[in-house]
Amino acid sequence: MNGAESLVRTLVDSGVEVCFTNPGTSEMHFVAALDKVDGMRAILALFEGVVTGAADGYGRMAEKPAATLLHLGPGLANGLANLHNARRAETPLVNIVGDHATYHAQYDAPLASDLKGFASPVSGWYHSSASPKTVAADGARAVQAAMSAPGQIATLVLPADTAWLDADGPAPALPNAGPAAVSGDTVDRIARLLKSGKKSVLLIRGAALKERGLKAAGRIAAATGVRLMCDTFTARLQRGAGRVMLDRLPYFAEQIEETMAGTEQLILAGGKPPVSFFAYPGKASWLTPDGCDIAYLAHAHEDATAALEALADALGAPKEPINVASLELPDLPNGKLDSFTAGQVIARLLPEGAIISDEAATSGIGPAIYTTTAAPHDHLSLTGGAIGQGLPLATGAAVACPDRKVVCLHGDGGAMYTLQALWTQAREKLDVTTVIFANRSYAILNVELMRVGAENPGPKALSMLDLHNPELNWVELGRGMGVNSMRAETAEEFAEQFAACMKEKGPHLIEAVI
Amino acid sequence: MNGAESLVRTLVDSGVEVCFTNPGTSEMHFVAALDKVDGMRAILALFEGVVTGAADGYGRMAEKPAATLLHLGPGLANGLANLHNARRAETPLVNIVGDHATYHAQYDAPLASDLKGFASPVSGWYHSSASPKTVAADGARAVQAAMSAPGQIATLVLPADTAWLDADGPAPALPNAGPAAVSGDTVDRIARLLKSGKKSVLLIRGAALKERGLKAAGRIAAATGVRLMCDTFTARLQRGAGRVMLDRLPYFAEQIEETMAGTEQLILAGGKPPVSFFAYPGKASWLTPDGCDIAYLAHAHEDATAALEALADALGAPKEPINVASLELPDLPNGKLDSFTAGQVIARLLPEGAIISDEAATSGIGPAIYTTTAAPHDHLSLTGGAIGQGLPLATGAAVACPDRKVVCLHGDGGAMYTLQALWTQAREKLDVTTVIFANRSYAILNVELMRVGAENPGPKALSMLDLHNPELNWVELGRGMGVNSMRAETAEEFAEQFAACMKEKGPHLIEAVI
Repeated sequence: MNGAESLVRTLVDSGVEVCFTNPGTSEMHFVAALDKVDGMRAILALFEGVVTGAADGYGRMAEKPAATLLHLGPGLANGLANLHNARRAETPLVNIVGDHATYHAQYDAPLASDLKGFASPVSGWYHSSASPKTVAADGARAVQAAMSAPGQIATLVLPADTAWLDADGPAPALPNAGPAAVSGDTVDRIARLLKSGKKSVLLIRGAALKERGLKAAGRIAAATGVRLMCDTFTARLQRGAGRVMLDRLPYFAEQIEETMAGTEQLILAGGKPPVSFFAYPGKASWLTPDGCDIAYLAHAHEDATAALEALADALGAPKEPINVASLELPDLPNGKLDSFTAGQVIARLLPEGAIISDEAATSGIGPAIYTTTAAPHDHLSLTGGAIGQGLPLATGAAVACPDRKVVCLHGDGGAMYTLQALWTQAREKLDVTTVIFANRSYAILNVELMRVGAENPGPKALSMLDLHNPELNWVELGRGMGVNSMRAETAEEFAEQFAACMKEKGPHLIEAVI
Repeated sequence: MNGAESLVRTLVDSGVEVCFTNPGTSEMHFVAALDKVDGMRAILALFEGVVTGAADGYGRMAEKPAATLLHLGPGLANGLANLHNARRAETPLVNIVGDHATYHAQYDAPLASDLKGFASPVSGWYHSSASPKTVAADGARAVQAAMSAPGQIATLVLPADTAWLDADGPAPALPNAGPAAVSGDTVDRIARLLKSGKKSVLLIRGAALKERGLKAAGRIAAATGVRLMCDTFTARLQRGAGRVMLDRLPYFAEQIEETMAGTEQLILAGGKPPVSFFAYPGKASWLTPDGCDIAYLAHAHEDATAALEALADALGAPKEPINVASLELPDLPNGKLDSFTAGQVIARLLPEGAIISDEAATSGIGPAIYTTTAAPHDHLSLTGGAIGQGLPLATGAAVACPDRKVVCLHGDGGAMYTLQALWTQAREKLDVTTVIFANRSYAILNVELMRVGAENPGPKALSMLDLHNPELNWVELGRGMGVNSMRAETAEEFAEQFAACMKEKGPHLIEAVI
C-alpha cells in the first residue's frame, strides 16, 4: 500500500465520505487510490473554486468534513476565495493539496510556489507530510483538526513521493471532542443578567441556529422578553414554519446602529458583537451602542445549543417557545417579475426540507421576506463576502443531502465567478434548482458607490458596475454545461417554471430576468 | 483631490494606461477617479483570474505594466493562479488591491483576511499604503518595482480611507533603470568557452527571445555551431518566417535528458538550467548532464539581448544568422480534424504579426510544428503551469496590440477555468479568435497517470480525467457571453471557419471537436 492509499483509507475510516476534486499530475496516486478503497465518493469539478465551495456546502449540511483534492499551490489558490467563506462559516473541511515530490522542491519547477503562504490565511491547521510513513497519521490529524469545534479548515499537503512510496497502512481515526461545555456558573450569570430588566439582545451564531437551539432561544424570549437576533450572514439557519424566528442584523452600518439603539445588554451565543461589513466615511464600524454591556453565554468553540437549553431551564422558562413562525404561503403573483414576486413564488412552492443557497444579494430581499413563513428549510448564506459561493455551495449541499431539494438563489454578477459548478451538478445529477436573478448589474455597487461618497460618477465608473454590454445569456450558459435551462420574464412564467423544477429531480436553471 | 485620484494620476504619469478591474465597495473611489483622469482605460472582467491573466498578457506584449483593480484579499485570491503564471513569465504588473479602511481592520469584518499572506507568494514588491498622503508616491514606487528587470509583480494595497481622504496630488514617475549591462569580461569569457570546441547549448530566456536577440543568437550559432535552445514554456517568443529558430526543450524529463545528452557546456542567457516539470518515480529532476559545465552569459535581470550581440561581435560572427525560418505554408488539409490538421490550417492562414496565446496542451503539437515556418508571429505560452491562462492572456494581448490578430489555442479542460474572459472580449470587441480543442478530457493526465506509475487505473480514477459526462458545448458557452461561436468537426469546416475569423475583426470562438 502506498502513501496515497493509506491516506484515502484513513480518511474513510475517519468518516470522510466525499472528495471534491480537481487533480493534476502530482495527485495521480491519490486518484488511483480512489478505486482501491471503498467508501470515498469522488466528485470532479472544472474549477477549484467549485471544489472548495462544494466542500463548504457539504460540511455545513453534513456537519463533518468533505475532502478536497487540489493541484499544488495554484490549484489551492483558485480555491482560496471560497475557503475564505468556509473559514468564516466555521465549516469543517479537509484540504488535500498535492505538491511536488519532497526532493523536487529544491528545483523551483514552474508549478512550485509558496504553498504554505497561500494556505495559511484560510487554514486553522496546516501540515505538509514529510514521509509516506506519516501520511496516514497526518490525515487522521487533519480530520480531527477540521472537526475541532466549531469547525475549521485543515490543509494537508501531500508531496508526490509521500503518495507513491510504500506506507505502513491506514491510521486509526482520532477522537472528536465536540464543542466544550459551558459552565453552570456562566449560565447562571447570564440568567441573572437577563432577569435584570435591562433591554437585552441575544445574538446567536453557529450550530445553535438549528431547531434545538432556536427552540431554547424562543423559550428564553418567552421568559425574559429578550430580543433574539442573528448575524446578517449565517452559515446555516433553520427557518420557516414551526421554527423560532430571529431578527437578522441588517446589512448597512446605520441600519444596524438603528436596530441596536437602546440595547443595554448584548448576550452572545457563539458569535461576536456586530460590526459594519465595510467602512464608510463618517459612519461607525463598531455597532454595539455606547454603554451597552457585552456578555458571552458561549464562545464559538463552546456548545451554545446546550447552553441555551440550560439557560432556558435556569430561567424557569415555559416549555414552549414564542416567536414561532406559522405556515403562511403567499398567493402566486401575476405580472412583473422582480425580487418580491419571485420571492412569493419561491415561498409558495418551496418543498419542506429544502435547502436554500442564497447569494441573491440585492435580489434576495423578496425571497427573505416571504420564506420566513414558508415550509421549514435550511438557509445557507454568503459568510465571507467573497462572491461566487452560491452555486458551489448548492452543489455540495445537494451531495450531502440527496433527498432534499436544493434551491440556489444567485445574482448574475456573483454567479459568473464559479459558473462551472453547473457542470458538476449535471454530471452528478444533483437535485439543484438555480435561479439566476439577471439584473445585468453589480447592483449592490450602485448603492455602495453613493454610500462611500463617490458622487457624480462618470460613465467609466458606471460601466464598471454594469453587465449589459453584452448581456449574459444564462440559458445558453446553463445548456452549455448540460443543465436544463430556461428563462422567465414574467411572474407567471417564473411560477410555472419554478413549479416544474420543484416537481422534477435533477439540475435546472431559471434565468429570472428582473 | 483624494488619495484614489492621486494614485490614478500617478499611474498614468508613470506610463500605466490600462487597468483591468473587478472592483467592489472598497474600490469605489478608485473607480470614481477613473472619470476624473484622462489616459487610463478601464476594462471590466467578471472574474479576477481574467483580470490578472489579462494584465499578464498586456504586460508581455506592451513591455510595461497594466494595473489590476481587485477587491480585498478574496478578490486577490481569485487572481493568484494567473499571477503565479505572470511571476514565472517575469511580467511587469501592478496589482492595486482595495482593502478595508485602516481603522476598520481591527474589527475582523467578514471580508477581512491576511491580504499580505495571499499576496506575498506572487509579489516581488508589496506595500500597503498607510495614508492618503503617501498613496501617490507608493504608486510610483509600485510601477518602478514592476519595471525592475526582468519585470515583476508589484502589489499595492489601498485601504479605503487612504483612497477617500484628501491627498496632496500625484507623485512624479520614478526612473526605470532597465536591465543591467553584462560586463565585457563576461562576454569574453563566454566567447572563450564557445571557442573551446566543446559541445555546447545556448539556452535563451526572456526578452532576448525577440528578433534582435534571436538574430544575435543565430550569428553566434553561425560562428561556433552552438545549439540554440529555449525553455519548454516561454513568456514570449518571436517565431515564424524570417526568425532564427530555436530548439524548444521537450516537456518530459526523459526527453530533455535525451536531447541534452552529450552536452559539455550549457550557456545561459537569462534563464536557468532545465529541470523536470514534475517529478516521476525513478526519473531525474535535474536535467543538466553530469559533468556539463554551466556558465551564465546573462542573468534574468541583465540585458541578454545586448550581451548576445556583444558575444556575436566578440566571436567575429558573420552578419547574417543561420537557422532562419523560411516561409513554408502547408496545404489546407481535408478530412479528420485533429491537432495536426488544425495546425496546418492555423499555420496556413495565420496573418503576419499575429499573437498566439497557447494553452493547447496536448493539442498544441500540430500547431507548434506547422507554425515554425508560418508568417512571423509572437507566441505566448503557459509559463507557470497553472491552467486557465490562455483566454485571459489573449484578452490582455489584444488590448496591448489592437492592430494585431490574436489567436488563442486552448484545451477544453483549461479553458473552463477562466471562460469569463470571453465576455470581456465581447465587451471590448477585441480581435481574438479562440480555438477550443474539444477532446473532452484532461488528456495530459491520461498520460501522466501512467507515467507516475499509477497502473491499472479503475473507473473512478479515469472518470477524474474525463469531461464527456456531460459534454461541454462551447458554442453555447461562447454565445452565452456574446462571442460569435461555431463548431468544426472536420478539417474543411475548421479551415473555412478559421479563414473567416482571420478576415473579420472582433471576437470569435471555434469549438474544434477532435
